[in-house]
Amino acid sequence: MKFVTFGEIMLRLQPEGYKRISQADRFDLFFGGSEANVAVSLANFGEHAAFLTKLPDNLVGERCLKDLMYNGVDTSSIIFGGPRMGIYYTEKGASQRASTCIYDRAGSSITTLKKKEINIKNLFSGATWFHTSGITPALGKDVADVTLMLMQKAKEKGLTVSCDLNYRKKLWSKEEANRVMTACMPYVDVLIANEEDVSDVFGLQADNSNIAGGKLSEQGYIDLGRKVLERFPTLKYIAFTLRESFSASRNGWSGLLVSRENTTRSKRYELDIIDRVGGGDSFSAGLIYALAKGMSDADAINFGIAASALKQSIEGDFNRVTVAEVNKLAQGDGSGRIQR
Amino acid sequence: MKFVTFGEIMLRLQPEGYKRISQADRFDLFFGGSEANVAVSLANFGEHAAFLTKLPDNLVGERCLKDLMYNGVDTSSIIFGGPRMGIYYTEKGASQRASTCIYDRAGSSITTLKKKEINIKNLFSGATWFHTSGITPALGKDVADVTLMLMQKAKEKGLTVSCDLNYRKKLWSKEEANRVMTACMPYVDVLIANEEDVSDVFGLQADNSNIAGGKLSEQGYIDLGRKVLERFPTLKYIAFTLRESFSASRNGWSGLLVSRENTTRSKRYELDIIDRVGGGDSFSAGLIYALAKGMSDADAINFGIAASALKQSIEGDFNRVTVAEVNKLAQGDGSGRIQR
Amino acid sequence: MKFVTFGEIMLRLQPEGYKRISQADRFDLFFGGSEANVAVSLANFGEHAAFLTKLPDNLVGERCLKDLMYNGVDTSSIIFGGPRMGIYYTEKGASQRASTCIYDRAGSSITTLKKKEINIKNLFSGATWFHTSGITPALGKDVADVTLMLMQKAKEKGLTVSCDLNYRKKLWSKEEANRVMTACMPYVDVLIANEEDVSDVFGLQADNSNIAGGKLSEQGYIDLGRKVLERFPTLKYIAFTLRESFSASRNGWSGLLVSRENTTRSKRYELDIIDRVGGGDSFSAGLIYALAKGMSDADAINFGIAASALKQSIEGDFNRVTVAEVNKLAQGDGSGRIQR
Amino acid sequence: MKFVTFGEIMLRLQPEGYKRISQADRFDLFFGGSEANVAVSLANFGEHAAFLTKLPDNLVGERCLKDLMYNGVDTSSIIFGGPRMGIYYTEKGASQRASTCIYDRAGSSITTLKKKEINIKNLFSGATWFHTSGITPALGKDVADVTLMLMQKAKEKGLTVSCDLNYRKKLWSKEEANRVMTACMPYVDVLIANEEDVSDVFGLQADNSNIAGGKLSEQGYIDLGRKVLERFPTLKYIAFTLRESFSASRNGWSGLLVSRENTTRSKRYELDIIDRVGGGDSFSAGLIYALAKGMSDADAINFGIAASALKQSIEGDFNRVTVAEVNKLAQGDGSGRIQR
Amino acid sequence: MKFVTFGEIMLRLQPEGYKRISQADRFDLFFGGSEANVAVSLANFGEHAAFLTKLPDNLVGERCLKDLMYNGVDTSSIIFGGPRMGIYYTEKGASQRASTCIYDRAGSSITTLKKKEINIKNLFSGATWFHTSGITPALGKDVADVTLMLMQKAKEKGLTVSCDLNYRKKLWSKEEANRVMTACMPYVDVLIANEEDVSDVFGLQADNSNIAGGKLSEQGYIDLGRKVLERFPTLKYIAFTLRESFSASRNGWSGLLVSRENTTRSKRYELDIIDRVGGGDSFSAGLIYALAKGMSDADAINFGIAASALKQSIEGDFNRVTVAEVNKLAQGDGSGRIQR
Amino acid sequence: MKFVTFGEIMLRLQPEGYKRISQADRFDLFFGGSEANVAVSLANFGEHAAFLTKLPDNLVGERCLKDLMYNGVDTSSIIFGGPRMGIYYTEKGASQRASTCIYDRAGSSITTLKKKEINIKNLFSGATWFHTSGITPALGKDVADVTLMLMQKAKEKGLTVSCDLNYRKKLWSKEEANRVMTACMPYVDVLIANEEDVSDVFGLQADNSNIAGGKLSEQGYIDLGRKVLERFPTLKYIAFTLRESFSASRNGWSGLLVSRENTTRSKRYELDIIDRVGGGDSFSAGLIYALAKGMSDADAINFGIAASALKQSIEGDFNRVTVAEVNKLAQGDGSGRIQR
Repeated sequence: MKFVTFGEIMLRLQPEGYKRISQADRFDLFFGGSEANVAVSLANFGEHAAFLTKLPDNLVGERCLKDLMYNGVDTSSIIFGGPRMGIYYTEKGASQRASTCIYDRAGSSITTLKKKEINIKNLFSGATWFHTSGITPALGKDVADVTLMLMQKAKEKGLTVSCDLNYRKKLWSKEEANRVMTACMPYVDVLIANEEDVSDVFGLQADNSNIAGGKLSEQGYIDLGRKVLERFPTLKYIAFTLRESFSASRNGWSGLLVSRENTTRSKRYELDIIDRVGGGDSFSAGLIYALAKGMSDADAINFGIAASALKQSIEGDFNRVTVAEVNKLAQGDGSGRIQR
Repeated sequence: MKFVTFGEIMLRLQPEGYKRISQADRFDLFFGGSEANVAVSLANFGEHAAFLTKLPDNLVGERCLKDLMYNGVDTSSIIFGGPRMGIYYTEKGASQRASTCIYDRAGSSITTLKKKEINIKNLFSGATWFHTSGITPALGKDVADVTLMLMQKAKEKGLTVSCDLNYRKKLWSKEEANRVMTACMPYVDVLIANEEDVSDVFGLQADNSNIAGGKLSEQGYIDLGRKVLERFPTLKYIAFTLRESFSASRNGWSGLLVSRENTTRSKRYELDIIDRVGGGDSFSAGLIYALAKGMSDADAINFGIAASALKQSIEGDFNRVTVAEVNKLAQGDGSGRIQR
Repeated sequence: MKFVTFGEIMLRLQPEGYKRISQADRFDLFFGGSEANVAVSLANFGEHAAFLTKLPDNLVGERCLKDLMYNGVDTSSIIFGGPRMGIYYTEKGASQRASTCIYDRAGSSITTLKKKEINIKNLFSGATWFHTSGITPALGKDVADVTLMLMQKAKEKGLTVSCDLNYRKKLWSKEEANRVMTACMPYVDVLIANEEDVSDVFGLQADNSNIAGGKLSEQGYIDLGRKVLERFPTLKYIAFTLRESFSASRNGWSGLLVSRENTTRSKRYELDIIDRVGGGDSFSAGLIYALAKGMSDADAINFGIAASALKQSIEGDFNRVTVAEVNKLAQGDGSGRIQR
Repeated sequence: MKFVTFGEIMLRLQPEGYKRISQADRFDLFFGGSEANVAVSLANFGEHAAFLTKLPDNLVGERCLKDLMYNGVDTSSIIFGGPRMGIYYTEKGASQRASTCIYDRAGSSITTLKKKEINIKNLFSGATWFHTSGITPALGKDVADVTLMLMQKAKEKGLTVSCDLNYRKKLWSKEEANRVMTACMPYVDVLIANEEDVSDVFGLQADNSNIAGGKLSEQGYIDLGRKVLERFPTLKYIAFTLRESFSASRNGWSGLLVSRENTTRSKRYELDIIDRVGGGDSFSAGLIYALAKGMSDADAINFGIAASALKQSIEGDFNRVTVAEVNKLAQGDGSGRIQR
Repeated sequence: MKFVTFGEIMLRLQPEGYKRISQADRFDLFFGGSEANVAVSLANFGEHAAFLTKLPDNLVGERCLKDLMYNGVDTSSIIFGGPRMGIYYTEKGASQRASTCIYDRAGSSITTLKKKEINIKNLFSGATWFHTSGITPALGKDVADVTLMLMQKAKEKGLTVSCDLNYRKKLWSKEEANRVMTACMPYVDVLIANEEDVSDVFGLQADNSNIAGGKLSEQGYIDLGRKVLERFPTLKYIAFTLRESFSASRNGWSGLLVSRENTTRSKRYELDIIDRVGGGDSFSAGLIYALAKGMSDADAINFGIAASALKQSIEGDFNRVTVAEVNKLAQGDGSGRIQR
Repeated sequence: MKFVTFGEIMLRLQPEGYKRISQADRFDLFFGGSEANVAVSLANFGEHAAFLTKLPDNLVGERCLKDLMYNGVDTSSIIFGGPRMGIYYTEKGASQRASTCIYDRAGSSITTLKKKEINIKNLFSGATWFHTSGITPALGKDVADVTLMLMQKAKEKGLTVSCDLNYRKKLWSKEEANRVMTACMPYVDVLIANEEDVSDVFGLQADNSNIAGGKLSEQGYIDLGRKVLERFPTLKYIAFTLRESFSASRNGWSGLLVSRENTTRSKRYELDIIDRVGGGDSFSAGLIYALAKGMSDADAINFGIAASALKQSIEGDFNRVTVAEVNKLAQGDGSGRIQR
């Protein structure tokens, strides 16, 4: 199967180990971006994953391209040009010290992407699924236009469309997000979100009775999911990830999938976190894979959550696991016994 | 505000990651010392922190000086001369394997420090607080003389004086410690200690009824604190850190502040430890900052404990956090959620 | 005391930190093998530990030899020749992601070892103990012949013989293992195993009543131990390690020693794992040391388990701890407090 | 244009920097092999380069595959299976200390390659050039059969065929090499070699008058080239690289191209060597590219030598340079001025 | 003495060792910029060096600030704000492969600097010298205005003003450069340049008779220097560096100082280059120091060239040498004998 | 053959690559000392090399011991005790920047060594050669006494005695050196020195006619050698190394051996230096080996110089080469061609 994703990919710079930026003398180098992460996950699942973006035509853009090729992503639709690679700096948190993330993405090459630069025929040829996120249209007016156009074209061509709502307040206002994302929703089949996203972008909240101590109960998530499905009548699924942050080192992790017929809560994992960046994207990839392959709702949410539990034990944004590895965990072996 | 600290700073050599010295092929390089660590913490809180020490006049002493400058410490009172940089080798423990520490500090430059080398006027000009520890007078007769003299001068000039009792049995006997520290106590406003220090140096113990399984109860700490306050009538505060060592990887961490009027127990954190060296010093710095800024006893002990909880998630002796970061944790967000 | 062990030692290649092989750009380099690990542990306990193996006569074999010499192992019986160094690649697991291990040991130099190459007189001169494992005879017909011969000679010379059953399904079938190991058992005094080994090699299982949820109860292990002792009338001890794998990062760890007279369960540790490879071998070494020194059954199993708990906090296959360090933990201090 | 190469690719392990294997504690990880190196060079020149080999179906084989994909090589013909990845260990020489290379390639997956496993149609579809080396048929009877078969098929389909003679005395005897390579020569258009190869494999030497101090003069190389062209009437070109080894750090480097009509000596470079491994392969790739693109003999030999001069300033076996970079050097700018 | 410099400082990212960006997996982290490099050199000479720039108010800007503090630079005039840190990526060349440099500096914080943000009184208080370069006014209209204003103010306050012409064609056209730099020249006492700068910015060339093989003779440089002095009647000195690039690894290095009375050629060094970035800036710093201290023209040019020869043996943009080290080389000991 | 050497071994700390100490963030860790270096060289030549020293009884002393064991040195005579490990910090020079070396060896364990601690019988049992240097008696009165005593005992037992004059002005005055070394000379058979040593310690100089430009001619060295042989009538050989320091990166390297009958100049090598520390010691080891094995004077000096040329291409103080490797170079192959 061919999956297509669209968005920005950035250079990620992170001090070695648990060092803070204020004490760094070298940076580990990763590449990542919400939709690129999904593409890499899908490629590692053995699928045909094409990624659309725009990269600067210099050694840094070339290095990024090679990283995608390394991971087996179809890069034939990537466009070269524009001024620069977006960057984000991260420092890895531990214990009570949170991870931090500093974006330096303004004016990156993708913000210069124009509709006419894209070879849509090549991009969607043979594809069954299109995925993007709420970050992408937030990058600028042109990119927002491209996003909406690609959703429409994907829909026309019969692809399933998924979107990770991902509201980023540094990129746009709630009003802008509401306007643009509402315009997109008629083309979306599967929405991935968390409660804050849904509140910030669509102004939807769970009933008070489902909130205790400032947190949603499981029923609260279900109610919220139902409200979203009501608001957007063509939407088929809304999926939530539920992260319980005990500390930067330890999290609880589970998910919830709400369709018009079912509500399914996944298994819950206790995570010792190696790198939490890309956790949500690996969930999206797992869920997309599972739904595209026709798994049941329960299997799909469990596949997505198992995939993303594994991701958070891996350095870098990308989920470097196979379908067999995900299945093994989803089907019960989380013991971490050595594989000889 | 200007804070002044006085003591030795040493070169710390530690194998990479969790390697033992017996398998090391390179050393990570840090600098640290109880009072230097306090000065760096205060500088990172945005305060004027002057540090007094004596460093060898060679490339290693210069490297150390640069590390202090990097962290914004006022190094204008540092004296150059003497034979060598003190060194300590550490290996980072994990699980049931304890961290170890080997000192090679004999004959270091600070042991040659004489009163007349110090420009006291420059050192204390504009200062509101003076801090040192029980390690410093233990380094030798001359340094002990300097320590007492500085406490007296600080007091004369109206500074608040704090001291971390820090008994080091490899440096001096209990008798010597008792004699010297007892002479110092009339000048001390804030004493920081743990129960063994108090017992070793002053021969004070909690009542038996407050000991269970070889460990003090909270009431035991309070009783002990009261005894210390009784013994030294000019002392205003005694502060304890309470470390529960489940393993080298995991500790409980809290503090207790006893004044003549109040007793306040801090919040308690479950730590996943990255580097515990300097944990106590970062507590001292946090407490000093909080008291100097006029926080309430409860806020002060919570600020100190939160600061030192964060420190133990950071590589090296120095606490590289801002006041805002400490406040965020002290006021409740220990979830470790990513900061974008 | 002189201890002799015999087996293969391999080059171990592992990506830095928690990186997967699919993202590795350099390998940390270790050497390890079940019996070599035992020899190194014993040498670090201050004993005379001789190791017999065959290494290729090239720079890689020389590098391996140096690693053994570094650890104080008596390498005077090692034979040089044969085509190549066996290799195994590992990646370190974390959280729900298991560690993996890929062997590339076919055709290694030890498979060309012939009886006549060994100077038995030098090897066993002054020795009190001989140890090997079920991996060694699985390497090939010639090595199996050498193994049996060495057990017989050791027994003739009055040495105590121990064997770690260690069934490796990639090396031989259950039938072959049963035939060869059954022939060896009359010479074995101390057998170290886990339940799967005992089942796979000897076809012995605990009674159903001692199994719950697919896992043996403590009584189940005791029953199984008794059955093994019945089957092999000259065997004096069977020892089990009991690993509870909550995740790749956290394990429970304890042991059980069954003799004809006693059954002793050790203390149980909660491990935060740094490197679990070699955990079982460090247990064997601890137990061998303790029994050879005449410790009680209870002290012996506790010494073995404490030694192996420490090992799992250390990078590499080798247990780099002293007897004093093991005793300190076995006698109660697992607090991980810093050693100054 | 599509170029096809066939041969083994191995895992290369090398201590950091200039460390000897006897002092290594970690290995830098590269992949390389004569024909794989040619494929990567051509891919970096922007051409379609397909590489045929057989890799083990495990994490190490997968890591190798990813390295080829990273470099843009067409890996669609690669076959998975067989027992293991071939390995070579290198240490980087300096000054009077030569680089060393230890092969551990026996029994690698490619030695199990059978003709029937290859999809020749896919491999040669649209291709204009086929390249292999004298190393490949030396790996075993089956691989030799495959090599000859591929040369024949390539010729049938109208491809140009090149071969790097590359005699490896550890893999086969001169007699075997002579027999097999003589059978191959009727299909070869372009032969790349040095004087020892030509002597060892074909028994051809230059006249005595062209040897001074044990070394061939330029005329000697020309004579030898003419003799080879006479022996093999369908051969169009023979190319020599002329390395002057002053030390492991400094070499002179030039080339000579002999056709039936012309003899062209390239420019000569003084090299400060970063990594000489793969130097010859990068020459082959440069020459192949130049001849395929229809450059004149003089331009072709200069392009090949400039490409390989650049390679030797780059870490790893692969030549990571563009056509523009090669042209810039070949056309005269070897000043190393910074490119802003 | 107090020296003031003004310009941009950027984050420099460079692969380890001689790796190309296309094969990098981590970046060494440096900071550098033409005028910052001068300030650091002067601080390492033991002088008071104040640097004016604008840095983003985030963790990356803070990290940069700490680097300047580490090197003893007076950072009290630095302004915080604006969107981002400028970046440049470098790869280190070797042999025939040139170093490369990719700028990502558009929209950096300094481009938002306004005159009113600068506390000129603090900046120039007690200063004797002001230095900037032709890069700074090229960054944008606002920065150009600030540059001219600072030159005027410096002149008014009696400071000596120096400028490194440094024409960067990617930042502005020759016409713009001519217009802005011509406006600046009346305030400049010491101009540092090379022949291309002088030609590009001022349209001045040496006479034909002084050019051979495309290169200026020494007399050519002298003539060119005289023409510049004629054009700008208030200029006191023009200094040239003469780099002979044999390869990226080896350069000849010397300088020429032309005043109205004298012409002095420096000693010439054969450099084995470790890091050539910042070579010119370290020359500027050396020359500025020497002239400010009243050295003769000959001593000054020799001090500047010796300082910059040493710089090119040091990693990073900054020259980390003392006056004593420079004097030792300038006065004759370039033997590189070990200093015990 | 058994060789015995006596002296201090220190921990050497050096920044990575060419970094200066003022920019170091980690240290590579080596061990070295003049006589330890000789012992390791001889062990790598396959000889029995015993080293006598005193090490602190802590983890750092143990780490050092393991390094010697790794290299096959007989450590059975090493004494444990005393306060600390001596340390020296180095930074690697390049081009015009010299290497530097900072000693922190005062009060190291060897300075507490007493005659009675040494088991002379075990030390000299079966030995044929004893070697020490002029550094050792300079460490203190007790060590000087031990040195003289060992020379006397060695002579009594019929060993050949060699001494590397190695005058270190930071350790003692010329007068002290003269007194102590003159007392030692009657026991010395082979003296290794350079001209400054001979002048500083014995006050001997070559005639003026043999000095040009401040440097000795070859004849000057011969004259000086003859004068030393005249002064000390029992001395058999004096050997000089002749280092021509063009820069820190490039040296000429040769040697001269003067006996009562012969004078032999070695071949001369042009060195690209990787690590020059230990160069002289590797020469001593080579010369000692060659003379002990009965090589001719010409072969002996060439063996010593070839060995030390190779050493300077190797990281760390120790010469990690075999006799075969030295012979290969001494007999003519310095081409640095790759060894496959």
